[in-house]
Amino acid sequence: MADNKKMVEAITSMDEDFAKWYTDVVKKAELADYSSVRGCMIIRPYGFAIWENIQRILDTRFKELGHENVAMPMLIPESLLQREKDHVEGFAPEVAWVTHGGNEKLQERLCIRPTSETLFCEHYSHIIKSYRDLPKLYNQWCSVVRWEKTTRPFLRTMEFFWQEGHTMHETAEEAIHETEQMLNVYADFCEQSLAIPVIKGQKTDKEKFAGAEATYTIEAMMHDGKALQSGTSHYFGDGFARAFDIQFTGRGNRLEYPHQTSWGMSTRIIGAIIMTHGDDNGLVLPPAVAPIQVVVIPVAQHKEGVLEKASELCARLKKICRVKLDDSDNSPGWKYAEYEMKGVPLRLEIGPRDIENNQCVLVRRDNREKTVVSLDELEQKIPELLQGVHDGLYAKALQNRENRTFSASNMEEMVKVAGEQSGFIKAMWCGDLACEEALKEKAGVTSRCMPFQQEKISDVCVCCGKPAKAMVYWGKAY
Amino acid sequence: MADNKKMVEAITSMDEDFAKWYTDVVKKAELADYSSVRGCMIIRPYGFAIWENIQRILDTRFKELGHENVAMPMLIPESLLQREKDHVEGFAPEVAWVTHGGNEKLQERLCIRPTSETLFCEHYSHIIKSYRDLPKLYNQWCSVVRWEKTTRPFLRTMEFFWQEGHTMHETAEEAIHETEQMLNVYADFCEQSLAIPVIKGQKTDKEKFAGAEATYTIEAMMHDGKALQSGTSHYFGDGFARAFDIQFTGRGNRLEYPHQTSWGMSTRIIGAIIMTHGDDNGLVLPPAVAPIQVVVIPVAQHKEGVLEKASELCARLKKICRVKLDDSDNSPGWKYAEYEMKGVPLRLEIGPRDIENNQCVLVRRDNREKTVVSLDELEQKIPELLQGVHDGLYAKALQNRENRTFSASNMEEMVKVAGEQSGFIKAMWCGDLACEEALKEKAGVTSRCMPFQQEKISDVCVCCGKPAKAMVYWGKAY
Repeated sequence: MADNKKMVEAITSMDEDFAKWYTDVVKKAELADYSSVRGCMIIRPYGFAIWENIQRILDTRFKELGHENVAMPMLIPESLLQREKDHVEGFAPEVAWVTHGGNEKLQERLCIRPTSETLFCEHYSHIIKSYRDLPKLYNQWCSVVRWEKTTRPFLRTMEFFWQEGHTMHETAEEAIHETEQMLNVYADFCEQSLAIPVIKGQKTDKEKFAGAEATYTIEAMMHDGKALQSGTSHYFGDGFARAFDIQFTGRGNRLEYPHQTSWGMSTRIIGAIIMTHGDDNGLVLPPAVAPIQVVVIPVAQHKEGVLEKASELCARLKKICRVKLDDSDNSPGWKYAEYEMKGVPLRLEIGPRDIENNQCVLVRRDNREKTVVSLDELEQKIPELLQGVHDGLYAKALQNRENRTFSASNMEEMVKVAGEQSGFIKAMWCGDLACEEALKEKAGVTSRCMPFQQEKISDVCVCCGKPAKAMVYWGKAY
Repeated sequence: MADNKKMVEAITSMDEDFAKWYTDVVKKAELADYSSVRGCMIIRPYGFAIWENIQRILDTRFKELGHENVAMPMLIPESLLQREKDHVEGFAPEVAWVTHGGNEKLQERLCIRPTSETLFCEHYSHIIKSYRDLPKLYNQWCSVVRWEKTTRPFLRTMEFFWQEGHTMHETAEEAIHETEQMLNVYADFCEQSLAIPVIKGQKTDKEKFAGAEATYTIEAMMHDGKALQSGTSHYFGDGFARAFDIQFTGRGNRLEYPHQTSWGMSTRIIGAIIMTHGDDNGLVLPPAVAPIQVVVIPVAQHKEGVLEKASELCARLKKICRVKLDDSDNSPGWKYAEYEMKGVPLRLEIGPRDIENNQCVLVRRDNREKTVVSLDELEQKIPELLQGVHDGLYAKALQNRENRTFSASNMEEMVKVAGEQSGFIKAMWCGDLACEEALKEKAGVTSRCMPFQQEKISDVCVCCGKPAKAMVYWGKAY
């Protein structure tokens, strides 16, 4: 077990330096690497396999709900980006500009898409003519570029991968329903596939998407108490439609503007997985998206029959889970540490004595609980234990959030709690930008969301004391 | 049938104007649309669904052969692009340059990747240390940008989608084996999934990839006799490895350079599908990649029980194929034309009399052959007929290629054949660039490939009369 210890010592402990722990895990679990382009990362095979699993689950769900995938250009002419006023103000300062093609200077600059509302709107203006053409339910999987000052793998990178849904509807009601529906898809995905509990709510005007009428969000809490915005869904009304002259002949035979939404989830969510479930031994992956769900590790593999049995088990388990046999020359202890680092949910140990007794040992990654299982019962026990890992991770994350959720009913309390604790702080708000900014300045917190599930902490705004309009979750965020 | 005729008239006939026919099909089958960025296209849902089917089949095959997906940045610093001399000479004239991030001018220009050898090599220089780290078998699905002067949807666009495999091997033999293996994967895919016969061969030095030692290619013949390069696989030797200082400790404990390959197939292949199989009624899709394999069209759908039966059939057929029911108000004739335009391989017609007789009519898209089938036998007959469509398409394409393959043994013959015919011309070549250029100038043909399956047309070069080194396929190409 000596080298096991060595591996573990190689990561910074979470309590000592959470930021360093995070980059250690990203690097040692081989999720991502730095590239020669500042702020752009290389997503390595193990990290990309997680993203592929995320894509598969979300894409299936989108398609079940009638959405279709398309591909828009990655470049946007400057004049097109400028068409919607709030939008260009929000994004122009952070885009990458293409000015030359080969040796020639372009007549008009093109930016690499930071998001694609403008491109979708231009296309929609060509293809939406009648109410019969609605709804349009499009999505694309791509990468986008935003010129960020400071970056961290997965959490904030200049180029990041995401999906962006863009839909057009006949009525405001339908568009609002879509906005809510897609937020629920994201929330269900986080809770059911990633074991991450989230709070659903609406962003304040200050925090909403550039050009949107309303932005809905799911907010997750990381192990250290900071918030991570994990998915957003925007309702645009007909603002972009007016700016892009998208009109259709309605049922009443009059020209109308359609109502629009967009919604996205990105590779940030991999950062959320790391920081919600990880521990001092490395990554801990929720089974639904783990590239390897069960790793088979032979013990005393030089002994006759051990490798054969391990290999036979692996072939058999392929039918029910993503399984890998590690028959390399490394010691079992080294392998245990390696796959703990990589967050594999279940480890199956099998040695000569196990084979004699027609059994093996299954070890859960989340709590290291060992179960001795008859080889005849694996098809039943493995799904149960994987579900157990999922449930355990969810319960632990929820407990962390509950332990770190506070409330404040006046500014003194707010400053005190925000200074002493890291977590969510529930407090009432009058709706004024001035109070939101004062909270940022005095307590160092930003509004995470106005949760759909409101509570009444008091009658008045935590900042100005005027009548409150909503309860807000406040906190520090990634 | 009046509106059926109207639809058909809306496309230019192939024989009248093949180029116009092509763009008509792209547009009317709703595969792609133009965008406001010159040379960039929008891939619409129906076109993108074809690409998703292509991706799924190829990706599964790549993974079976041990390849792993990764994601590299889309931007390359100018200094990195310049590291390998031949490579930068080939690509620098046709890249898009990012010069500004937000409002700041960059210290070093970044290009949008035209291909990613340089990025992979830099990453490999960090992660390959020992022969134990080899082979590295990486692939990525992405889009790349090349600043083309003239563009056509799918065939040549400034931004196009592709996969690019990049692998590193311990020995030259292993790398050459990989190069050949991946060319075979592409050839098998074209023949078995797309019903497109291809010729496998090697590119001449003039036509090979910038920086490669050897480029292997598969060449397909379009309906009009022109060639389309449908996939390429490159062997690099250790040229890039030396330029990027990639060294590993070999089995003999000495530092060695690894041997490299790359290989790619792009959205061009959708252009190949259109131009190989299409006809005057529109697109004809090979069943393996068709988004809809069977369209169910109710006849006299207002009659009692018709829609119910059609819908019941559709639900049943979902288990064995990609099926769609069109229960819209359009007439059956309109629908027939619509799904012929969209290239759906099989049409299932069902009306009141069919229901009475427990049967339906299946119509093949490729030859319009009708088969009356008992409803009890659909699970057996539909796969048979889909296979029939595939085989029919392949045979027709092969026949076209055979009809349009000629040979020439001297320059006079070459000029005559190239002037009178559109197709492949087999002729011997001495290996000199001067002769290759003379053939381009005098006969207007370029070398497509030196096929692996060589034939002896004569002993001497078709151009200079000196001893021949290889038989070459010459032709005009997209």
